[in-house]
Amino acid sequence: MDLTEERLDSREIFRGHIVTLTVDQVRLPNGGQAVREVARHPDGVAVLALDEAGRAVLVTQYRYPLGRTLLEIPAGKLDGGEEPRAGALRELEEEAGVRPDELTELGAVYVSPGFCDEKIHLYLARGLHQTASHPDEDEFLSVSRMPFDRLVELVLSGQVEDGKTVAAVLKAKLILDK
Amino acid sequence: MDLTEERLDSREIFRGHIVTLTVDQVRLPNGGQAVREVARHPDGVAVLALDEAGRAVLVTQYRYPLGRTLLEIPAGKLDGGEEPRAGALRELEEEAGVRPDELTELGAVYVSPGFCDEKIHLYLARGLHQTASHPDEDEFLSVSRMPFDRLVELVLSGQVEDGKTVAAVLKAKLILDK
Repeated sequence: MDLTEERLDSREIFRGHIVTLTVDQVRLPNGGQAVREVARHPDGVAVLALDEAGRAVLVTQYRYPLGRTLLEIPAGKLDGGEEPRAGALRELEEEAGVRPDELTELGAVYVSPGFCDEKIHLYLARGLHQTASHPDEDEFLSVSRMPFDRLVELVLSGQVEDGKTVAAVLKAKLILDK
Repeated sequence: MDLTEERLDSREIFRGHIVTLTVDQVRLPNGGQAVREVARHPDGVAVLALDEAGRAVLVTQYRYPLGRTLLEIPAGKLDGGEEPRAGALRELEEEAGVRPDELTELGAVYVSPGFCDEKIHLYLARGLHQTASHPDEDEFLSVSRMPFDRLVELVLSGQVEDGKTVAAVLKAKLILDK
């Protein structure tokens, strides 16, 4: 069965610094029509960094859409045209002030493919060297470290609620345990 | 350190069927100001359903923002005011035509907390009974089943790219293996 939805019309509602919103008219596989609200968003990277003591590097950040802070791994949007590995190294250094000897790909995830094209590339970083943390001007965060096994427990018990962090931590856990 | 960002102003750009977009002016922890583009989106549910033969129920769906199909677990948005467990049972029956004896919570994930408030509640369903599948009018999908261990392999190798599916599959894998 061909499930393709064909674009008949696209209306740009908003073009911001981060989000571009369009409302599209599409033809469905059965010939009918439907409306699709689509948010275009830059792709991102997220890095689970483990130090020599087996601790994960974490950032606590205020997430304005939720009205509260969230415990996450270092992450961020790719700059225009930036290669994902380069973005991962940049964000890890900017947010947490560390540089790794080793950066392993953990695949990528689409965060909400029903309405948004955002894809986040996940990485595992090891062999950490301290540099100097220098977050973006309008970015405020608190960096901490936690034993990796404790972090896995917090993910499994539902206390870690950031999607990219859940995906990267559990992928790494299963791959490292193999 | 108080990381709170205080709303100074909020301008509604678009109110659609699924997304409401606002552009807000906020006061940062250091007294400075910044702009936040925020997409409000209904919360959702996603269900990893395992049958007696140890196979997972999957749906392949065309994801218009990506321009291609994606392999996912059954999922959907909560209807206004709907309780997450009820939504999980409804979506599982609508999309895959099965009803479970047992529904276990796997926690929830925020899909992209930097710009969007969407939260997806994850579930593990077991003891499946076939009913009749009746997807939404403008929803076209292909249902299949795959041995759970094979699905875990596809997630770890990066071939499953849907974030909620990655999170639910790996949480279930680690919890069931305990």
